[in-house]
Amino acid sequence: MIKVGIVGGTGYTGVELLRLLAQHPQAELRVITSRKEAGSAVSAMFPSLRGHVDLAFSEPAPKALAGCDVVFFATPNGVAMNEARVLLDAGARIVDLSADFRLKDVAEWERWYKMKHGAPELLSQAVYGLCEVNREHIQGARLVANPGCYPTSVQLGFLPLLSAGVVDSDSLIADAKSGVSGAGRKAELHLSFAEASDNFAAYGVPGHRHWPEIRQELRHMAGREVGLVFTPHLLPLIRGIHATLYARVTKDADVQALFEARYAKEPFVDILPPGTHPDTRSVRASNMCRIAVHRPPQRTSGSDMVVVLSVIDNLVKGAAGQAVQNMNLMFGIPETTGLLHVPVVP
Amino acid sequence: MIKVGIVGGTGYTGVELLRLLAQHPQAELRVITSRKEAGSAVSAMFPSLRGHVDLAFSEPAPKALAGCDVVFFATPNGVAMNEARVLLDAGARIVDLSADFRLKDVAEWERWYKMKHGAPELLSQAVYGLCEVNREHIQGARLVANPGCYPTSVQLGFLPLLSAGVVDSDSLIADAKSGVSGAGRKAELHLSFAEASDNFAAYGVPGHRHWPEIRQELRHMAGREVGLVFTPHLLPLIRGIHATLYARVTKDADVQALFEARYAKEPFVDILPPGTHPDTRSVRASNMCRIAVHRPPQRTSGSDMVVVLSVIDNLVKGAAGQAVQNMNLMFGIPETTGLLHVPVVP
Amino acid sequence: MIKVGIVGGTGYTGVELLRLLAQHPQAELRVITSRKEAGSAVSAMFPSLRGHVDLAFSEPAPKALAGCDVVFFATPNGVAMNEARVLLDAGARIVDLSADFRLKDVAEWERWYKMKHGAPELLSQAVYGLCEVNREHIQGARLVANPGCYPTSVQLGFLPLLSAGVVDSDSLIADAKSGVSGAGRKAELHLSFAEASDNFAAYGVPGHRHWPEIRQELRHMAGREVGLVFTPHLLPLIRGIHATLYARVTKDADVQALFEARYAKEPFVDILPPGTHPDTRSVRASNMCRIAVHRPPQRTSGSDMVVVLSVIDNLVKGAAGQAVQNMNLMFGIPETTGLLHVPVVP
Amino acid sequence: MIKVGIVGGTGYTGVELLRLLAQHPQAELRVITSRKEAGSAVSAMFPSLRGHVDLAFSEPAPKALAGCDVVFFATPNGVAMNEARVLLDAGARIVDLSADFRLKDVAEWERWYKMKHGAPELLSQAVYGLCEVNREHIQGARLVANPGCYPTSVQLGFLPLLSAGVVDSDSLIADAKSGVSGAGRKAELHLSFAEASDNFAAYGVPGHRHWPEIRQELRHMAGREVGLVFTPHLLPLIRGIHATLYARVTKDADVQALFEARYAKEPFVDILPPGTHPDTRSVRASNMCRIAVHRPPQRTSGSDMVVVLSVIDNLVKGAAGQAVQNMNLMFGIPETTGLLHVPVVP
Repeated sequence: MIKVGIVGGTGYTGVELLRLLAQHPQAELRVITSRKEAGSAVSAMFPSLRGHVDLAFSEPAPKALAGCDVVFFATPNGVAMNEARVLLDAGARIVDLSADFRLKDVAEWERWYKMKHGAPELLSQAVYGLCEVNREHIQGARLVANPGCYPTSVQLGFLPLLSAGVVDSDSLIADAKSGVSGAGRKAELHLSFAEASDNFAAYGVPGHRHWPEIRQELRHMAGREVGLVFTPHLLPLIRGIHATLYARVTKDADVQALFEARYAKEPFVDILPPGTHPDTRSVRASNMCRIAVHRPPQRTSGSDMVVVLSVIDNLVKGAAGQAVQNMNLMFGIPETTGLLHVPVVP
Repeated sequence: MIKVGIVGGTGYTGVELLRLLAQHPQAELRVITSRKEAGSAVSAMFPSLRGHVDLAFSEPAPKALAGCDVVFFATPNGVAMNEARVLLDAGARIVDLSADFRLKDVAEWERWYKMKHGAPELLSQAVYGLCEVNREHIQGARLVANPGCYPTSVQLGFLPLLSAGVVDSDSLIADAKSGVSGAGRKAELHLSFAEASDNFAAYGVPGHRHWPEIRQELRHMAGREVGLVFTPHLLPLIRGIHATLYARVTKDADVQALFEARYAKEPFVDILPPGTHPDTRSVRASNMCRIAVHRPPQRTSGSDMVVVLSVIDNLVKGAAGQAVQNMNLMFGIPETTGLLHVPVVP
Repeated sequence: MIKVGIVGGTGYTGVELLRLLAQHPQAELRVITSRKEAGSAVSAMFPSLRGHVDLAFSEPAPKALAGCDVVFFATPNGVAMNEARVLLDAGARIVDLSADFRLKDVAEWERWYKMKHGAPELLSQAVYGLCEVNREHIQGARLVANPGCYPTSVQLGFLPLLSAGVVDSDSLIADAKSGVSGAGRKAELHLSFAEASDNFAAYGVPGHRHWPEIRQELRHMAGREVGLVFTPHLLPLIRGIHATLYARVTKDADVQALFEARYAKEPFVDILPPGTHPDTRSVRASNMCRIAVHRPPQRTSGSDMVVVLSVIDNLVKGAAGQAVQNMNLMFGIPETTGLLHVPVVP
Repeated sequence: MIKVGIVGGTGYTGVELLRLLAQHPQAELRVITSRKEAGSAVSAMFPSLRGHVDLAFSEPAPKALAGCDVVFFATPNGVAMNEARVLLDAGARIVDLSADFRLKDVAEWERWYKMKHGAPELLSQAVYGLCEVNREHIQGARLVANPGCYPTSVQLGFLPLLSAGVVDSDSLIADAKSGVSGAGRKAELHLSFAEASDNFAAYGVPGHRHWPEIRQELRHMAGREVGLVFTPHLLPLIRGIHATLYARVTKDADVQALFEARYAKEPFVDILPPGTHPDTRSVRASNMCRIAVHRPPQRTSGSDMVVVLSVIDNLVKGAAGQAVQNMNLMFGIPETTGLLHVPVVP
């Protein structure tokens, strides 16, 4: 059994980790920390976990965590970077669900996250945990930077096109829509039901933190600099990201075949038949990413655009599920262990 | 008082027409037809109209309608084209909320709507009722083709850019999202609450009927052929369209100033301050279109993309409200009459 | 024109007052105060009001407010009671949308609201503003306590039964459900979209502040002490209250006729035909209360229970609309002025 | 492995059975029938099942079904009663999720379901499958009538009170609210998103089919005739039933202790601490029923009412989950097998 600790278990990625790990056959929850809730039962805050999780929140004490084989950070940005070193030295491995280790360029990180980075020396050993791309590095990693939710859906959608070099990498567009849980478990007015329901808007168009993260990784796929417009929108639903991706085809290609070939062996990426449209609920509460590829009409005579539709559950493949997938890889157990839940429909 | 008839008053555009006209100071509802509901009180079907509309649905009898000054068709496609001639001959004017008279090219209409057109000879006199573009023609029109909901939001968003010739008109993208009422008042499984709520997907990516309509009109604005990718999505909300528009800037321009200048005198188009994001509820139940213009980051060094965010209420500015606006223009009364409702928020 | 001031215009009852008053033909908005937002444009906070309300929020200065004919308090509990005296002395009339003047018993008020009452001497002159019951007193009132949202829906539903003395007033049950806007415009976790949507629960069953308010008023209707169980629930919708009321019939009566007779002349209470079920959207954004009365099966042989279904829009008839109705009465203009909006459906 | 057949796998109870059985360690899906969809892949209709269910729908052929150990009927009312005899004779056991075998009184069944019963001779051997009450009979049953969704939530809430004889069984009230999936996977206008979302209403107050079912079973618990008013409402959410139950206490009792004792050993009934309010999402996608018991204020001096709040997921404990629980009992495997999923929150 893998001994597991969670730092910051009171947010949505935290409770989703608890849901997944409580049902994981090879994980044993040892510690869940929360400075604010220390001492109170986890199931008192989340009645859905009554009978499944018997732990109480504990103070974030390095000693208890250091006894864990793996520690998940489900904390706000800026926490993991200051606590990782001690845990790594104690022999624990780390999967960080926050953004602390996602960008390789410290200066860029500090510009976007508006704070000084606490452990720039760890950035080089941190592995970006997009399993479908970095599987081998993850297997040997001690510190994994779990990708953001938008970045996961966007990268998996662009990957086959950029790897094959069949699109113009300078004019990519990602029109992305996320459910409200993507913003975290927060008391903020604009996230309240009376504001966010029966409503829809873009946000962060002048600049969103996931933009540099996506570009950094697309650059690796393309093998060159990329241009990307990224437009996030807030959807009136709880879970789900839908990325609608646009690229200009520069080399003739059977894009459907390209996607099917690239993901043929991937357990968590499902390429849908031509002509279909994945909906977010088809992956609800599961670790799947479903993708459809289209060549829509553009002009009276033809089109050079490809449109990719990519959906994930932002809390699973976009956060806690991918974190568990990373843990499975790091500990050499089958990658799908504890992650084959059937999506909840309707 | 303008004597008004409505053909097909049982759909959402019909009941919205009733809501607006019941409060319109210069319109007098005379006839509302519905073959299926003939004889029953309108307010029995729509209790929200109790005390406001005392009419019963009547059989679609040309005679009664012919006595009206204006007849609105809130019918499925294929009805108005067969009934318009008689009413026009009798002296009534027509605002058709269906698609029958929107396309000028009969062959293209028949290809997209999969039926033979019943009155091709009327197409040339039909005026496309986007008031902000065709105001003068509408004033003298006897037959107005009320624009589709998506086309309204997309055209108003692209208009200043195309008119000024500052973007590449060959690579336009309209990523559009519509509330469920846009699909009409229908018993269809995919529109049911348990299917459509807490869910999101694109649809019609291989081809949507609003694509040729939008292209036809953008062509007029650009003065040349245009290329357009149009991606509609179904939003889990009742009313509202959000169009996210992408265009490549080819000529240096202050796009904010361009939009503000173009719409300075328009009562129903509101250009928001730079950096903002209109939400659909800010126009809920009103005839406004709100637009924000952005130049988002694209590459490390700069960007040549402009992103336009355009929102309307699909049942008002996208259907019934615009129809009333057209009526106002056709009858020479102030364009805003009966249309200055404050949006309902929250 | 009635010169109007609003204290605390940043909540949902405040913005709803603005929506109604901006369209009211005899009201002139003069002052809107907000300590926190002083100086900023009202329409910057509420883009839906762009073009309709040109005022900026101002500091809560008694002097400016004192020049108003009427001042609405759309403030948290505990504000109006401390500011009313000065305004009344200056000649302004007051409609208080908070709970400060609703209970006649100071001790009970202080027990439920957990603070010392600031103006107990005003309680006797405050008129409880349920227009359908207290119309005459309101006409002469200088200080009106606008009823709570739940109390309005519950009282209008029980009124004919209690007035006629046909039910057991000792075992009344009000199972009430409210949309989220009833909780106010607040950044609170349990009101966030990800918590409140796709979810439903009761709350406050051990005791809710509207319980003493409802009982106080039902007591007047019954002419004796009443027993009432009140169970509020939070609905995943924005606007709307549905009260399901249960009473034991003790005297044979045609309850349908009873309701129709009692409300025959009321412009804002609509008794539906027998066998029907009002839905909350049938009153959305309007000042109507719709009621249906049932005698449901209970035992194999008969029933002595009456079930009343009563719906209102909590922000209109349950708050801002009723406040305007009170203003109309206080200033001797037709009671329905500015309040005959058609409900927004769908 | 238990060989399983499903008749009518295209509705919501069908797809939920598929979700549960695909993850059940001792069930093997053999046959799924659908006359209308015969030949097409199950996962083509439900993309959420891609990779989990590889079967195609087949014609409802008795032969294939007869080879199954257990057949679930997830059909409209009136199907199972005509097909059960053949399957029982062939040695299969049956769990019927429809209402065909729920009522013992044929005449009453025919009155409420408006058709002639096809197999009245089977009614006496059919066991009503509320596991918490009839566990022993279910273990030996060949034909189980799976309870309705409302009846499950209402019965579990009243059971301890009636068994202990501490309430007046003649004046029970069940104010129940159900998510839209409870109405089935149907193309009906009143269930469409634009009608049912942002809306709430009661329905069926003059008489609902679950009323006789609930009364029949409460009668057994009480050991005497019962009086019950049952008021169903339609909630704007997908899954979840919340029953708010009212009863008059006639014998002094510690109701909290009563509930805790009665359900101490039940794996799927969870009694919450005093003062709490279960929300429907706390059981979302799980087989749990959570209950809280209250003694709310009623009069100035005390109260004789008890209020029970009972929540289930209508598709799991209210349908497919309870059906699997019944299967587990019938086949002598641990009752919780395949049913211990953690609820999906948020």
